[in-house]
Amino acid sequence: MSQMAAVVVKDGHIENVHIDIPTPAPGQVLVKSLACGICGSDLHIARHADEVADIYDKLGVMSKEAMASAPMMLGHEFCAEVVSYGDNTPQRFAPGTRVTCVPMLMSMGGAGVGVTPGIHGAYSEYFIVDEQLLLAVPDNLPSVGAAITEPMAVGMHAVNRAGIDKDCVALVAGCGAIGLATIAALKHMGVTEIVASDLQAKNRDIALQFGASHSVDAAIEDEVALAAKIADGRRVVIFECIGVHQLINGFIERAPAHSTLVITGIHTAMTQVNFGFATVKEMDIKFSYYYTPEEFAQSLELLAGGDVPWEKMCTATVGMDGVSHAFDTLLGKHDHIKVVIEPWRPGAMAPFENN
Amino acid sequence: MSQMAAVVVKDGHIENVHIDIPTPAPGQVLVKSLACGICGSDLHIARHADEVADIYDKLGVMSKEAMASAPMMLGHEFCAEVVSYGDNTPQRFAPGTRVTCVPMLMSMGGAGVGVTPGIHGAYSEYFIVDEQLLLAVPDNLPSVGAAITEPMAVGMHAVNRAGIDKDCVALVAGCGAIGLATIAALKHMGVTEIVASDLQAKNRDIALQFGASHSVDAAIEDEVALAAKIADGRRVVIFECIGVHQLINGFIERAPAHSTLVITGIHTAMTQVNFGFATVKEMDIKFSYYYTPEEFAQSLELLAGGDVPWEKMCTATVGMDGVSHAFDTLLGKHDHIKVVIEPWRPGAMAPFENN
Repeated sequence: MSQMAAVVVKDGHIENVHIDIPTPAPGQVLVKSLACGICGSDLHIARHADEVADIYDKLGVMSKEAMASAPMMLGHEFCAEVVSYGDNTPQRFAPGTRVTCVPMLMSMGGAGVGVTPGIHGAYSEYFIVDEQLLLAVPDNLPSVGAAITEPMAVGMHAVNRAGIDKDCVALVAGCGAIGLATIAALKHMGVTEIVASDLQAKNRDIALQFGASHSVDAAIEDEVALAAKIADGRRVVIFECIGVHQLINGFIERAPAHSTLVITGIHTAMTQVNFGFATVKEMDIKFSYYYTPEEFAQSLELLAGGDVPWEKMCTATVGMDGVSHAFDTLLGKHDHIKVVIEPWRPGAMAPFENN
Repeated sequence: MSQMAAVVVKDGHIENVHIDIPTPAPGQVLVKSLACGICGSDLHIARHADEVADIYDKLGVMSKEAMASAPMMLGHEFCAEVVSYGDNTPQRFAPGTRVTCVPMLMSMGGAGVGVTPGIHGAYSEYFIVDEQLLLAVPDNLPSVGAAITEPMAVGMHAVNRAGIDKDCVALVAGCGAIGLATIAALKHMGVTEIVASDLQAKNRDIALQFGASHSVDAAIEDEVALAAKIADGRRVVIFECIGVHQLINGFIERAPAHSTLVITGIHTAMTQVNFGFATVKEMDIKFSYYYTPEEFAQSLELLAGGDVPWEKMCTATVGMDGVSHAFDTLLGKHDHIKVVIEPWRPGAMAPFENN
């Protein structure tokens, strides 16, 4: 069996290894990874593997022992190329077709691709997906752009979870990849009052290009007060896209009456909140996770449509041997938004150029 | 100006005092308190005045100084009798008519009756309400029963906030007055699967009489697991009616996927939660506070209709001079559900008898 280059997480560190190329079972497709985004949750799994294992264990998803028994192979935001099929598989797409899909193996009980120990993700040169979930990537959308489909779907799902109307005022707190995707989804839905807050000027500027109507530096202005002022009694929906659990209580304290707080970050640490504020204001707090296959397909369509300047979000690409350094960079203070791995090329992080 | 007996809260203690009978302004009515329930929030205000003042202060409702400047006169769950009207007031009800109403003075900027320092509540012999909010109490409903309208409306509002369908499974955690009211509202709405949990056998028994389909001693059986088992994939709505903030995280950890947690307790202390569980299960957490005038009127109608055994909920009545002792009892370990003050009679707590 031939081998391939892959990246695995071991004890919180990234390691470059060579492992066997997996074999697709019936219904499955072997694909070659063309581009794979580094997600905030990948960094979280690398840094806080214990917290994640604890939640999976308590929920009965996977025991701590099972979590520790196999290597974690990341990569769930991908564009890939069809290589070969398992037996008795319809083969709807010719080898070489560029595809993306919901990173889930229905053929393996719904296991997540790129988030489940022992299951190959798109940080490997090759990995396995289900044929039934595959979507062809339109020719006009580069592979790096197609890899944005997954975070775009996260933003679209958050907006759908919010039950937002066009006349609500949205506050998107945090303009990383998920915040920007949320802004794009809000704009696509017809919401016109979109306040974007971020500490970094570059992110605020890109947020305006994605469709935000206002941008705020949360370090110098109260972004919640601004959204409430614009709303003037209309409902405010706050999208928490920062991923810092210590900031949640501040949103609950400052939110206007009858507002909705949508949590998109994955907060696995114990968090201190004063629910008394949420009571007096009769808030809804909604938690958003993943997306539906329909939302995923709509996200691909939205990106291919050309209205979302996704290339502004891609601040760098990196080859397989630069992933470890990229993680070190992204776990520190940095000004990247989305770094995309191109597993078929060697090399360190370099600015993305869309040609 | 003649004086009246009243109960005020000073430094966390109950004091019996004599104060001036207030004078109704235009649009207002002077009423005589016939019956007034002691609410969990009254106990909370007496015990945790600082926490409540802190939230009001931060929300700009009332400054800490203003909170401390006037005596807190409690009593917002009442049945009263019309005594006299202010000038230029329509006078829809003859003096002597038994009435109840939403405990709010629209004529004073929406100030809460019985929860605002300096504004008389129904723990006083006489107090002021707005004529426009008054509802006549049907003859067949005793005054103690009419005083249950307010907590009944809290339960009805919580059920409406939940956006529950008839085929959802409800878990009502805590069968005090609000839990029982929630059960009655769920039954009235046509929900048939209602799991009631409480540590006390008496409360569980009354919950079944109010309409619960199952009762659970949460000390020996996991009430959330039982609700999830009954639901078998249908949506579970958990109503937190316990009022103990330390228990909230346990509901988040144990709730089934896509469930809704409705918080009816007023939790003014910092609370530790792990939102990671809420994310993976895509929960909604909704906070319920007060009710609409329509819900209040429907609650009075429901109680007068005779289908709700409200008299089982009233475990004692108490005269004005017994309130201090009643607070001591209710702040300790006890087996009361709703204790109702009858301000026109002297005397200590005694079992309620519905004649």
